[in-house]
Amino acid sequence: MTEANSRPHDGFHVFDTTLRDGAQREGINLTVADKLAIARHLDEFGVGFIEGGWPGANPRDTEFFARAQAELELKNAQLVAFGATRRAGGKAAEDPQLAALVASGAPVVTLVAKSHDRHVELALRTTLEENLEMVRDSVEFLRSRGRRVFIDCEHFFDGYKANPEYALAVVRAAHGAGADVVVLCDTNGGMLPSGVREIVAAVLAETGARLGIHAQDDTGCAVANTLAAVDAGATHVQCTANGYGERVGNANLFPVTAALELKYDRRVLPAGSLAEMTRISHAVAEVVNLTPSTHQPYVGFSAFAHKAGLHASAIKVDPDLYQHIDPELVGNTMRMLVSDMAGRASIELKGKELGYDLSSDRDLAGRVVARVKAQENLGYTYEAADASFELLLRDEVNGGERLRFFELESWRTISEQGPEGRAGNEATVKLWAKGERKVATGEGNGPVDALDKALRAALERIYPPLAKLELVDYKVRILEGQHGTGSKTRVLIESTDGTATWSTVGVADNVIAASWVALEDAYTYGLLRADQQP
Amino acid sequence: MTEANSRPHDGFHVFDTTLRDGAQREGINLTVADKLAIARHLDEFGVGFIEGGWPGANPRDTEFFARAQAELELKNAQLVAFGATRRAGGKAAEDPQLAALVASGAPVVTLVAKSHDRHVELALRTTLEENLEMVRDSVEFLRSRGRRVFIDCEHFFDGYKANPEYALAVVRAAHGAGADVVVLCDTNGGMLPSGVREIVAAVLAETGARLGIHAQDDTGCAVANTLAAVDAGATHVQCTANGYGERVGNANLFPVTAALELKYDRRVLPAGSLAEMTRISHAVAEVVNLTPSTHQPYVGFSAFAHKAGLHASAIKVDPDLYQHIDPELVGNTMRMLVSDMAGRASIELKGKELGYDLSSDRDLAGRVVARVKAQENLGYTYEAADASFELLLRDEVNGGERLRFFELESWRTISEQGPEGRAGNEATVKLWAKGERKVATGEGNGPVDALDKALRAALERIYPPLAKLELVDYKVRILEGQHGTGSKTRVLIESTDGTATWSTVGVADNVIAASWVALEDAYTYGLLRADQQP
Repeated sequence: MTEANSRPHDGFHVFDTTLRDGAQREGINLTVADKLAIARHLDEFGVGFIEGGWPGANPRDTEFFARAQAELELKNAQLVAFGATRRAGGKAAEDPQLAALVASGAPVVTLVAKSHDRHVELALRTTLEENLEMVRDSVEFLRSRGRRVFIDCEHFFDGYKANPEYALAVVRAAHGAGADVVVLCDTNGGMLPSGVREIVAAVLAETGARLGIHAQDDTGCAVANTLAAVDAGATHVQCTANGYGERVGNANLFPVTAALELKYDRRVLPAGSLAEMTRISHAVAEVVNLTPSTHQPYVGFSAFAHKAGLHASAIKVDPDLYQHIDPELVGNTMRMLVSDMAGRASIELKGKELGYDLSSDRDLAGRVVARVKAQENLGYTYEAADASFELLLRDEVNGGERLRFFELESWRTISEQGPEGRAGNEATVKLWAKGERKVATGEGNGPVDALDKALRAALERIYPPLAKLELVDYKVRILEGQHGTGSKTRVLIESTDGTATWSTVGVADNVIAASWVALEDAYTYGLLRADQQP
Repeated sequence: MTEANSRPHDGFHVFDTTLRDGAQREGINLTVADKLAIARHLDEFGVGFIEGGWPGANPRDTEFFARAQAELELKNAQLVAFGATRRAGGKAAEDPQLAALVASGAPVVTLVAKSHDRHVELALRTTLEENLEMVRDSVEFLRSRGRRVFIDCEHFFDGYKANPEYALAVVRAAHGAGADVVVLCDTNGGMLPSGVREIVAAVLAETGARLGIHAQDDTGCAVANTLAAVDAGATHVQCTANGYGERVGNANLFPVTAALELKYDRRVLPAGSLAEMTRISHAVAEVVNLTPSTHQPYVGFSAFAHKAGLHASAIKVDPDLYQHIDPELVGNTMRMLVSDMAGRASIELKGKELGYDLSSDRDLAGRVVARVKAQENLGYTYEAADASFELLLRDEVNGGERLRFFELESWRTISEQGPEGRAGNEATVKLWAKGERKVATGEGNGPVDALDKALRAALERIYPPLAKLELVDYKVRILEGQHGTGSKTRVLIESTDGTATWSTVGVADNVIAASWVALEDAYTYGLLRADQQP
């Protein structure tokens, strides 16, 4: 990596609009506190600009800028206020919306401008010449107030295809009036990289303005479109964390910056922050309250997960044979999935991941592989059940002896629906724990829920840490779907004790028996984590 | 669109590997029945080739090809078997793995070959020359057995960068031996479009071989990389439904084919099937039991969702101001008017599909849309439950009156596991049919199986055709997975009477109540098919 210790300079802008355009994503609704928290994560990651919202457009964004001035101490980023060019027929100096942008205190302002003739006439309902005047007047006004100005040319690519001369006239107007960057926006997201490269190159040649790119992901090419613009000479990229944004989303900040740093060998982030990428991606997901995508490039939980046995054996020889970068570079880790496509090699790697060295003891490794294969023939799968796999591993390390916190005598569940239509569920468990026989009953809104309640009631006094144990997810899969409801059932249960979460699996010829097996593993693993003794 | 009625020809290949490479995705574990179901969806969508798996590598894939020959009637696609070149130092004619490929009966075989010198030496542990010989010998052997052969050059791009001469030698060896297509694979997924375009163009110029592209999504550019290869002259694209695949995933079949058809104006699918894209994408997700990605390009629930405001008003003027294509082209709908699947247009289409003309009666269509919306809010989905949707449609056609072959009084299931460890399940139903009150009990190897047995016992004498009715598949999905076993449960049941199969759905806050709802629909639909009268 060149200039490993240099700070990103103004020559190339990583511009984040998670707080403005990203918030357009369906299901995202940010409070001011959320926005401040995300801004801190983005600044730590090292973006150069954080677009915070549209002050004046809604009270929340106005409040955000007020509190940002007082509370945000940015190490790397400059705060950007977003707004529109002045209204048609008015004066910039008298436009309340532009006044609000100045009042926001943000040192940088991004103004959205129409650059598609059809939008000027149909949506803005003014003349093409007045729109150019609105751009000039607004940019000059904000420059006169000491603001740095970037222009977002909305629908630029569609506009350029429809009327290139007019689209170029908007770029020239903004550039001539003193906008530092003219951002070409693929607002509807219909572009492909070849077209983006061509048009960005043409606009650069025609205008000489500093160009930026704002890509939406409607064709699944937002990252590639952003890079295509950079190939053509753009030096300003607008992205959002995790690609949040309207419709499909925006260009994803993380694969874009990873590509620039690792593939283009171009320093766009402060030294060291690339390795924080995975953590920061997940932290932002936490704030917006969306589950992080497990399959997101570079930062996803599965981004460096290997399943094929073919791959596993090669990875033992040299991990780089089957990964395009070292996951550590982006703060992620390689994971081996235990699956019937894998063999001893992946089991050993998985054991290592869990802190068991199987390579030194070929016998043990062989027994584990045999156990896994036998279990897989019964329908078990461990790739999504690390805790069950670790218990299996422990059993073999302890000479095949399963550690038991309780011995089941029997369980029973009753579900019924009476004439009045409501369904009821009740479960009873009879078991032995620490020499005591326990009989307990629980009710639930499903037979498995009732079973969990009954098991909890039976054990809680004996093992107090169970009070913290909670089931957070429950998945059911019917195997060999050729025998209808007579098929085998696989249940995956995810549990948590508030700090860690773990997954367990159970297989049986009925959903409740399978759930019982997964529940037993979930409780056993939880009690082990809590350092309980049987 | 040009040649609107032309079928895709051999000049351009849409090659799907969902069943082979797609199955490598973490969390996907396909049964043979799942694979057959997915193959039917892909064939209906109109891909030219369906790679079914690696016969001989595991019993499941061997069984798939055996059953595919007997059960799959493909309208558009040819079945492809995947395998590797013969082992080093052997003879193709004596290689058991190649024999298994021939035995699979697939007319087309894709062979994976090493094209990266380092992989040949480190992973394959043979000489560069022997690897070339393995390619020639294996291709010639399969050609001599009448098979069409495609070659997957594993790690081609990394290999070309490390040793272009050797990578080209592998392409020439395959091409010279009679492989119809040489597929350049970005196995580790580290490429970006500019590099793909450059290398594909160079290989085409150097070898003249017909080239294909296999892209992984590790940089978030798999779709763009696939299109870049096409720009450079590749005429064979390998994709997976919904981009399923190892690590981040593979090039997504849907945005790739949508771009080729709608952006390149290139016919690669049978006329009309593009409009089935959204439905088929969701149906495949149901089979693999993964929630469809709401933000997937073209087919996602949010792909054409507009948050009200600036956009909304402009969209009233002209929807094309804010969407890059008409969503109807890919069977999706713009969401402004809230519901997704419940867009009137898609309901009318589905009605037509089932033989009900809703376009003539706007009131009726409106009532159906309202019912579907209400049901979807409860967690129902009709994409994979045509029979339940048709029953809903019939109800509305009959003025909201649900046709009932029996009236439930109550049901009860008991599941228990005694000290001896075996689990038992018993169910009792009390109902009225044709004026008779029936009380029947059934035992099963699961509570739902027992419920099915009891219902059958209660009704069989009154409705003899039920003897032929069988449940062939049963899927459970827990909704809102944040409340553990207390979540809502959706059950999908597939039934058959020996000639046709149909799917029904039930939703409730427990798996057994949900199963009851789906069972009731399954029986009702079966009795309708058998022309029974209540």
